[in-house]
Amino acid sequence: MPEQLQQAGPAVRERIQQSFARQGLMSLLGARLTRIGPGRVHITLPARPEVRHEHGYVHAGATSTIADSAGGYAALTLFAEDSEVLTVEYKINLLAPAAGDHLEAAGIVLKSGRTLTVCQLEVHGVGEDGERKLVTHGQQTLIRVDRSAE
Amino acid sequence: MPEQLQQAGPAVRERIQQSFARQGLMSLLGARLTRIGPGRVHITLPARPEVRHEHGYVHAGATSTIADSAGGYAALTLFAEDSEVLTVEYKINLLAPAAGDHLEAAGIVLKSGRTLTVCQLEVHGVGEDGERKLVTHGQQTLIRVDRSAE
Amino acid sequence: MPEQLQQAGPAVRERIQQSFARQGLMSLLGARLTRIGPGRVHITLPARPEVRHEHGYVHAGATSTIADSAGGYAALTLFAEDSEVLTVEYKINLLAPAAGDHLEAAGIVLKSGRTLTVCQLEVHGVGEDGERKLVTHGQQTLIRVDRSAE
Amino acid sequence: MPEQLQQAGPAVRERIQQSFARQGLMSLLGARLTRIGPGRVHITLPARPEVRHEHGYVHAGATSTIADSAGGYAALTLFAEDSEVLTVEYKINLLAPAAGDHLEAAGIVLKSGRTLTVCQLEVHGVGEDGERKLVTHGQQTLIRVDRSAE
Repeated sequence: MPEQLQQAGPAVRERIQQSFARQGLMSLLGARLTRIGPGRVHITLPARPEVRHEHGYVHAGATSTIADSAGGYAALTLFAEDSEVLTVEYKINLLAPAAGDHLEAAGIVLKSGRTLTVCQLEVHGVGEDGERKLVTHGQQTLIRVDRSAE
Repeated sequence: MPEQLQQAGPAVRERIQQSFARQGLMSLLGARLTRIGPGRVHITLPARPEVRHEHGYVHAGATSTIADSAGGYAALTLFAEDSEVLTVEYKINLLAPAAGDHLEAAGIVLKSGRTLTVCQLEVHGVGEDGERKLVTHGQQTLIRVDRSAE
Repeated sequence: MPEQLQQAGPAVRERIQQSFARQGLMSLLGARLTRIGPGRVHITLPARPEVRHEHGYVHAGATSTIADSAGGYAALTLFAEDSEVLTVEYKINLLAPAAGDHLEAAGIVLKSGRTLTVCQLEVHGVGEDGERKLVTHGQQTLIRVDRSAE
Repeated sequence: MPEQLQQAGPAVRERIQQSFARQGLMSLLGARLTRIGPGRVHITLPARPEVRHEHGYVHAGATSTIADSAGGYAALTLFAEDSEVLTVEYKINLLAPAAGDHLEAAGIVLKSGRTLTVCQLEVHGVGEDGERKLVTHGQQTLIRVDRSAE
């Protein structure tokens, strides 16, 4: 898949950064927003001891948490300012142990509809030498909600 | 589904409690093991501010983390001492906002095979008055691995 | 889960029977509607040679087809006359070979919301002696659409 | 994703063609194997009236049947002659009505492990003018079984 290297507009970026900053779980895990493109958002998670499984790999729960959030923000990049998205469901396969210096989760919009959005979720483990390995792959459905209607 | 109220044997319980204690993420989230039955394990998560989404509900990532772990331990209750399980994949639907005093995740074995186990995952939000609401429902596939073969 | 043995009302039953009759694939497979309850619909598929896999079991495609349809009709039983439902997504685990005289798929509504419905999907293989075995278990998301808006 | 245009070897192709020919459901639906590449298999389904939903689109059951089979054969292209694969589970999103002259399902191996294989499933609707639209996207887990051990 060709990388979409362009960034989202400044208003979208600011809206997403502010939402991310309000999420206690992201800060508890130590996750950071590392890219906000149109229909594509990356979240990076350092492999700190607190998020590792007993065998040393990052816990599947932490992996899926950043994947789910990356997909939600990716969907949000394509909506107007007064919209929010909620995850309806997601499915992920854990393909390999989540090893490395840090994990990088990508949420990528496959289909952006009026009500529902479908995203692909990819998480790579990245070593200190920059080597990347696909550790998790998934698919997610989200629903748009009007912030004014909440 | 009739509740299976019996407990797993003491060796199984001790093995699972020790594994749980070694998981940094469970302690980081504040999750606790609250039932270890044969083919059925419960994990409880108090709705602390750190695990809440910006709207006040528990973050889907924390919800799915305890659901995934409950399923993994439920599978483990039915195996011999030298076996481990790894999550192959799971799919969850977020049915309602995860509100309440605490969440209770149940992992329930649907099929325990020689290599693969399939679990149902249920998470209820529980209010201070004890009222329960189903907030998440899912399905999970796990694979048995011999600890000696690792 | 306690069996809901009551039937849906006559208008709902007739609407669903007419919709089923218009589906060429159901007739091609030889599937029949065998129960229309509120929030619960059953579809039965005789294990004819045409729907069997090369090993003699019913093909997963036929199994999931009747499961998906059973869930769709189960969702429909809870809506007003001018509503339709479309499958958004589903996930199924094939737990055991689909053997037996016929398969019985049950779609069971877990949550019926204004826009989205979530169903559990179960398929049993039923032997000539009436013995039942759970062969497929899944979860499905559907969206309500107004027929007038199409 | 760059198209892998090479074909699988003749022994693999013959093995898969023979297996496909033994599946009554594929013949009942009118599906055809249209590509056997290493880790990638395509199945094409003409949009005949018998496989259409009452609204004129191809039934989700037929769509998912060819997607599931394409994934299974894609996994098989990477195994030795005495191996078989069984679908453990799959999840598909129906992104758009399955319209067109025919559907083309692609099964694409994401990870081929010793025991488990994970595939991406894509189905495009193809118009008479050759225009393509993504109608279904999914993810599938398969398990390798030794034919000799059956």
